[in-house]
Amino acid sequence: MPDRVVLAYSGGLDTSVAIPYLAEKMNAEVVCVAVDLGQGGEDMELIQKRALDCGAVESVVVDAREEFAADFCVPALQANALYMDRYPLVSSLSRPLIVKHLVSAAKGFGGTIVSHGCTGKGNDQVRFEAGLAALAPDLEIIAPARDFAWTRDKAIEYAEAKGLPIETSKKNPFSIDQNLWGRAVETGFLEDIWNGPTEEVYSYTADPKQSRPADEVVITFEQGVPVKVDGRALTPFQVIDELNKRAGAQGVGRIDMVEDRLVGIKSREVYEAPGAIALIAAHKELESVTVERDLARFKRGADQRWSELVYDGLWFSPLRNALDALIADVQKHVTGEIRMTLHGGNATVTGRRSDDSLYDFSLATYDTGDTFDQSLAKGFVQLFSLPAKIAAARREKALSCTKVAAGAQELGGARDTMPTTTKRARSLNTARRR
Amino acid sequence: MPDRVVLAYSGGLDTSVAIPYLAEKMNAEVVCVAVDLGQGGEDMELIQKRALDCGAVESVVVDAREEFAADFCVPALQANALYMDRYPLVSSLSRPLIVKHLVSAAKGFGGTIVSHGCTGKGNDQVRFEAGLAALAPDLEIIAPARDFAWTRDKAIEYAEAKGLPIETSKKNPFSIDQNLWGRAVETGFLEDIWNGPTEEVYSYTADPKQSRPADEVVITFEQGVPVKVDGRALTPFQVIDELNKRAGAQGVGRIDMVEDRLVGIKSREVYEAPGAIALIAAHKELESVTVERDLARFKRGADQRWSELVYDGLWFSPLRNALDALIADVQKHVTGEIRMTLHGGNATVTGRRSDDSLYDFSLATYDTGDTFDQSLAKGFVQLFSLPAKIAAARREKALSCTKVAAGAQELGGARDTMPTTTKRARSLNTARRR
Amino acid sequence: MPDRVVLAYSGGLDTSVAIPYLAEKMNAEVVCVAVDLGQGGEDMELIQKRALDCGAVESVVVDAREEFAADFCVPALQANALYMDRYPLVSSLSRPLIVKHLVSAAKGFGGTIVSHGCTGKGNDQVRFEAGLAALAPDLEIIAPARDFAWTRDKAIEYAEAKGLPIETSKKNPFSIDQNLWGRAVETGFLEDIWNGPTEEVYSYTADPKQSRPADEVVITFEQGVPVKVDGRALTPFQVIDELNKRAGAQGVGRIDMVEDRLVGIKSREVYEAPGAIALIAAHKELESVTVERDLARFKRGADQRWSELVYDGLWFSPLRNALDALIADVQKHVTGEIRMTLHGGNATVTGRRSDDSLYDFSLATYDTGDTFDQSLAKGFVQLFSLPAKIAAARREKALSCTKVAAGAQELGGARDTMPTTTKRARSLNTARRR
Amino acid sequence: MPDRVVLAYSGGLDTSVAIPYLAEKMNAEVVCVAVDLGQGGEDMELIQKRALDCGAVESVVVDAREEFAADFCVPALQANALYMDRYPLVSSLSRPLIVKHLVSAAKGFGGTIVSHGCTGKGNDQVRFEAGLAALAPDLEIIAPARDFAWTRDKAIEYAEAKGLPIETSKKNPFSIDQNLWGRAVETGFLEDIWNGPTEEVYSYTADPKQSRPADEVVITFEQGVPVKVDGRALTPFQVIDELNKRAGAQGVGRIDMVEDRLVGIKSREVYEAPGAIALIAAHKELESVTVERDLARFKRGADQRWSELVYDGLWFSPLRNALDALIADVQKHVTGEIRMTLHGGNATVTGRRSDDSLYDFSLATYDTGDTFDQSLAKGFVQLFSLPAKIAAARREKALSCTKVAAGAQELGGARDTMPTTTKRARSLNTARRR
Repeated sequence: MPDRVVLAYSGGLDTSVAIPYLAEKMNAEVVCVAVDLGQGGEDMELIQKRALDCGAVESVVVDAREEFAADFCVPALQANALYMDRYPLVSSLSRPLIVKHLVSAAKGFGGTIVSHGCTGKGNDQVRFEAGLAALAPDLEIIAPARDFAWTRDKAIEYAEAKGLPIETSKKNPFSIDQNLWGRAVETGFLEDIWNGPTEEVYSYTADPKQSRPADEVVITFEQGVPVKVDGRALTPFQVIDELNKRAGAQGVGRIDMVEDRLVGIKSREVYEAPGAIALIAAHKELESVTVERDLARFKRGADQRWSELVYDGLWFSPLRNALDALIADVQKHVTGEIRMTLHGGNATVTGRRSDDSLYDFSLATYDTGDTFDQSLAKGFVQLFSLPAKIAAARREKALSCTKVAAGAQELGGARDTMPTTTKRARSLNTARRR
Repeated sequence: MPDRVVLAYSGGLDTSVAIPYLAEKMNAEVVCVAVDLGQGGEDMELIQKRALDCGAVESVVVDAREEFAADFCVPALQANALYMDRYPLVSSLSRPLIVKHLVSAAKGFGGTIVSHGCTGKGNDQVRFEAGLAALAPDLEIIAPARDFAWTRDKAIEYAEAKGLPIETSKKNPFSIDQNLWGRAVETGFLEDIWNGPTEEVYSYTADPKQSRPADEVVITFEQGVPVKVDGRALTPFQVIDELNKRAGAQGVGRIDMVEDRLVGIKSREVYEAPGAIALIAAHKELESVTVERDLARFKRGADQRWSELVYDGLWFSPLRNALDALIADVQKHVTGEIRMTLHGGNATVTGRRSDDSLYDFSLATYDTGDTFDQSLAKGFVQLFSLPAKIAAARREKALSCTKVAAGAQELGGARDTMPTTTKRARSLNTARRR
Repeated sequence: MPDRVVLAYSGGLDTSVAIPYLAEKMNAEVVCVAVDLGQGGEDMELIQKRALDCGAVESVVVDAREEFAADFCVPALQANALYMDRYPLVSSLSRPLIVKHLVSAAKGFGGTIVSHGCTGKGNDQVRFEAGLAALAPDLEIIAPARDFAWTRDKAIEYAEAKGLPIETSKKNPFSIDQNLWGRAVETGFLEDIWNGPTEEVYSYTADPKQSRPADEVVITFEQGVPVKVDGRALTPFQVIDELNKRAGAQGVGRIDMVEDRLVGIKSREVYEAPGAIALIAAHKELESVTVERDLARFKRGADQRWSELVYDGLWFSPLRNALDALIADVQKHVTGEIRMTLHGGNATVTGRRSDDSLYDFSLATYDTGDTFDQSLAKGFVQLFSLPAKIAAARREKALSCTKVAAGAQELGGARDTMPTTTKRARSLNTARRR
Repeated sequence: MPDRVVLAYSGGLDTSVAIPYLAEKMNAEVVCVAVDLGQGGEDMELIQKRALDCGAVESVVVDAREEFAADFCVPALQANALYMDRYPLVSSLSRPLIVKHLVSAAKGFGGTIVSHGCTGKGNDQVRFEAGLAALAPDLEIIAPARDFAWTRDKAIEYAEAKGLPIETSKKNPFSIDQNLWGRAVETGFLEDIWNGPTEEVYSYTADPKQSRPADEVVITFEQGVPVKVDGRALTPFQVIDELNKRAGAQGVGRIDMVEDRLVGIKSREVYEAPGAIALIAAHKELESVTVERDLARFKRGADQRWSELVYDGLWFSPLRNALDALIADVQKHVTGEIRMTLHGGNATVTGRRSDDSLYDFSLATYDTGDTFDQSLAKGFVQLFSLPAKIAAARREKALSCTKVAAGAQELGGARDTMPTTTKRARSLNTARRR
């Protein structure tokens, strides 16, 4: 019996061409696995059929939309995951789930080799292969684009030579990856980082500069999971899907950035993630209301680490599990409602309401009903600032031979450590009482 | 000779009333110090004169606008300082500078007591008194609002009884603090955190929902300092001032948040900081282009700590000095130009250009000219993911008696640590080749 | 009915005197609660009786030794908790448990006031009162030493005047707190930080300088909990108790340090914690064997934060709960055996053995059986160091007009950032081949 | 003219054999560079001569001892650099300096290829090649052991065949790297991590179990640099050298650990670093006395990152430069004297003295002269613990239908997050007053 290669299949040119190529090159049968992650676009049945038409012996389509939403997007939301404070990890989240279904298919169909379409200079190869190393270290991995140095031109030529049932004529300048959580675009003219993106780059989002009426939405969270939109109970997939449409219609979630890839280079990326950006804004605000200060400060660092780790392809790692345990503990109280205005590219929180709120009106108000005991403040201030005071006294002692006022001035500015800022004259006007 | 109280004077009702009150209560002379931090509003000469009219023996006005910009706003910009990822530290930055000038005045005018108008439940008392503890630990501190439990009503009554030359009739519902870096607003109806802010709350920013043409701006940085706008050389003060106007006109920089105060409570705050928000967006993007990955990841945590520390009133602390040394080192290469579109509440970077760029077109491009050696990737991926792989093998071993496919599934999701997300059925369609 | 004060009672002079004093001063009945935390020393029944003799209306003794070991010492062990890398949090761990039993007693005996013996300049007042704020915010708190400015001399005078049945003659120069996890000593001559501690300071540990045969011990952990010593199954209390004796007999666990107190001052502290120090050394080593690298690096920071938080009195805080969730996740694999030699003040690990080990002989060995594929290394090294390489190339470019060798030299040292180290001549000998 | 290979030469078998092998294989001339880092052992002139005898065309010896001490060991000391809290980075520190001199030699002698003796599974290849990538990216790199899969047996065979003037008969079971900062040993029987090290493994340290008189030493630091021992002014090299001898004679600085290598595996390592361990203990204690609390807490994380980074081979990286800037700022006040006892494997600090001390006797003392105002504590404690209190009140509210005492108990323990610890019965004895 020949070897079987299980191929992560997108329906596009590169992976379609890979079917006959791998069959020939490896003298193997090819099993295709296409995973529906809510990417929209082509009908999954067409994709399934195309794989067979290109020579696959089996063609599997997995509807993983709810699983992706619940097990990958929701954890990212709870970690407020924005790599470099910007990118909501669109592709980074999907790869581990695709890997999981590839491994299932390899077990089910007797595959010994798995294959993916990633190049050797991107992050996705790492995400695929780190996932495979964790879930099925015995499977052999082939990445034609990287391992056989395939290029797009070579693929077109091969497709035409073989008469494959796939569109090759239209030169699409964009390299795109998309799913429920967002959409990533790379294209030649954006590789000059002084060039701005044009409207045609975008597909999930309308132009934020267009004038249109604002949309108001209320999102309900239960323990960090979005469970309702405007009072209607929805699954996580449905919540994200609805917000993609509504926030997308208002131009929310466009991101244009220079990003640090895991393989050591900087790259220019354009993303759109209307639902993700709106949900993260809502979730962060609900955390501001329900999470205690010291915990919130620590979680910020844990969230950053989570984002870096998942970006770096280490979804299946002990550190992610441990961070998830911490984050899950925090989410216990992240329950309540957030009201947002979606408009002109902005998702702006305007109201928050929670039975788990730590905001205490009677402590916060300056009006009638104030219960805060201001007399406590003096002792607090003095002991809180005591270490800095003792350190300053040491410095003062060292400066004691110079004039005290000069000493104060020396201490006063950021001067010592900020040699690049220039000092400018300032006028000091003094008036005496007549 | 009587004691002299040096009072941080704003020109408003509370500190105007404090002049005769402190004189009487402490049997002292009052010296007023008003500091121009670019807050706009009333003419500083009027404020100077009002202090004398209310009974001050000396009235000093300090033009600290350039000093504030260069020594306080620029360091905050270089730290990308956003407390809780939102608030650009408007009031937190001004207090240490006011303290510095209060101390100078105390030395110059023989003051032994200093006084400020803060209450006992806010952050500003800490910032004032921590600063005074550092710069002039021997000065006595009086805060009438806190120490004598003054209220606004009491102040109005006192002003009227004494016939002070100050407006008391108009009940202003807003409590405002503003300077070059931004504006903070608190007011009664916002203490209900479900209420959204109304247009009248804002003064530095126009309504972002209004339709208007976009504005494009190019900002030039040298070693982290903004030095030009659209090619015109400007001082830091001038840069911020111009961006306040232009970004403000586009509705950029409105912030509505629930915030963790140092004194242990959560409070609702509304800010506007058009120049600060636009500059931080530009500066962060230029750092993305010019700062190496590991350093950028570390700096993110250092920036957060800087923000917390300055928010917490510890400007004059050894930790801020040390963080500034680190940040200054990073800024050495943060030189270049950022092009932004200001529109509809958004400050969107569309281009970056830098001689210090670490973005390398020839490594990043997928087109002709690619110099990245993809064959290196395989070894990288395998060793990079080796620790996670070994850990996964341990887990696999522990699961060895269960079916492998089940094991993969177990590993696959976030299930174990995400007990709150629900699992939903998914369809798996398989088609065989005919 | 009179008010009831529930007093945390140690049996010592200060809290014995507090019984009649509080009764008189507050016109209240006093209920004493003494908690057995394994501190040894006096019989708990004597302490219970003494409280009654001094005038308490109720006297409770709680045997909390197993609870303290399992619920407080074990979590500290799992966090490798060493404040400032040194202090295993002896007193910090006991206070929250005492608070818990004080609150239980207040509920059981109808107390409305609680009282403790702490001064106003130590950490323990914070630990007591932060705990009370969390568990029973309605109870009033009295700390006679702080609130009534009691001193030891005043206490002795009062005890003699009242004829209290308590030893007052012997002037004990040491202020001591001790429990199962260790012992803290403060005393006058140690307040000069140039003075070294003398032998009489110590009680849990023998002099490490004395010559004696070494002791070897094998400790078995299950999921981070020490469960056996030399193969004998023991409770956590029994494990710690046995190691206190055996490690203490070898002089292990003496600590002499200058420490940052929460109230803002530095203080000199001497501790002994033989069992804690030996167990933490064993636990850390078992983590080195069983915890994956990235997770271990992150946990180090989480452990530090845990230690600071608990030192700072915030045991009952959301952040501790969340850190515990993370730490508990890590402990799942911390199972195995550690062999240690106890001798001369050292607890030295000499062997580790674990079914959960991530140490893989076949990957690590340089001998026969090596399965590590060295050919992967080249790609790894090149991509791993690519960001630093690109950054160095930028610097090289900037130096391009100077000689390359000079540039290399410039880059080579720590010179730029290390202005305090001096450069010294070095000889460079070159020999040519004949 | 033939190519020239510049070889990092140790004088040992592997690099001696590499001389003729590289000459032959690459058809090149070989230039040898041996760097004296204070490793002791063979005379450097013999090593220099041996290179020529094996066929090198040039043989360079660089006396880099003072440079290594001042520019590499001292920065490590200032970072208290202990990888995994244990390993003082012995080999990690030397590689960048060797690289620097290799590059100088390549420039000086017209080399286009550099070569080192590292294998493909260790850290040192990364350190070499990351350094070369930074300093001289154009040089080609050859690592015979890795790239040509050389083994020791192959080397011996080759040496004998060629009649090289080098000892091959004695099978040395140890793989050793040593320099001024310490000594690293790997050997076959230690690859079983249950085996303890034997005495013969050690060379820098005497057996700590032997009885001998203690040694007392006073070390003087100026701004973080050790400048005197027992009052005698010394260079950094001399300080470390003297402490290696004196601390080594007392058995200080033995380390036996399982360590996370950069290439993704765990390995067993034995080190000895008597001077480094003693100096780090002294330096940390002086920092405890002279560095303010918040800064000390932050620096702990920065120190850890520094250690990881340098261990990982990224000495020449922007992050190290930035961390050094921070650390240098901290060192400004790390001036003073530390007295230590060296004995029985311990380096124990017994006294500290500093004009820059932040320890304030008058604030710390409980005796006469106390200036700490205890009345400030109450306000401090209440506001400091307010966030935890508000969070606890929320929990209490959620538990409100259960009995309050039960609620307190629930809150009291670590129960919820510590499912692995078992609860045990505890007795509660209550005595009533008769």
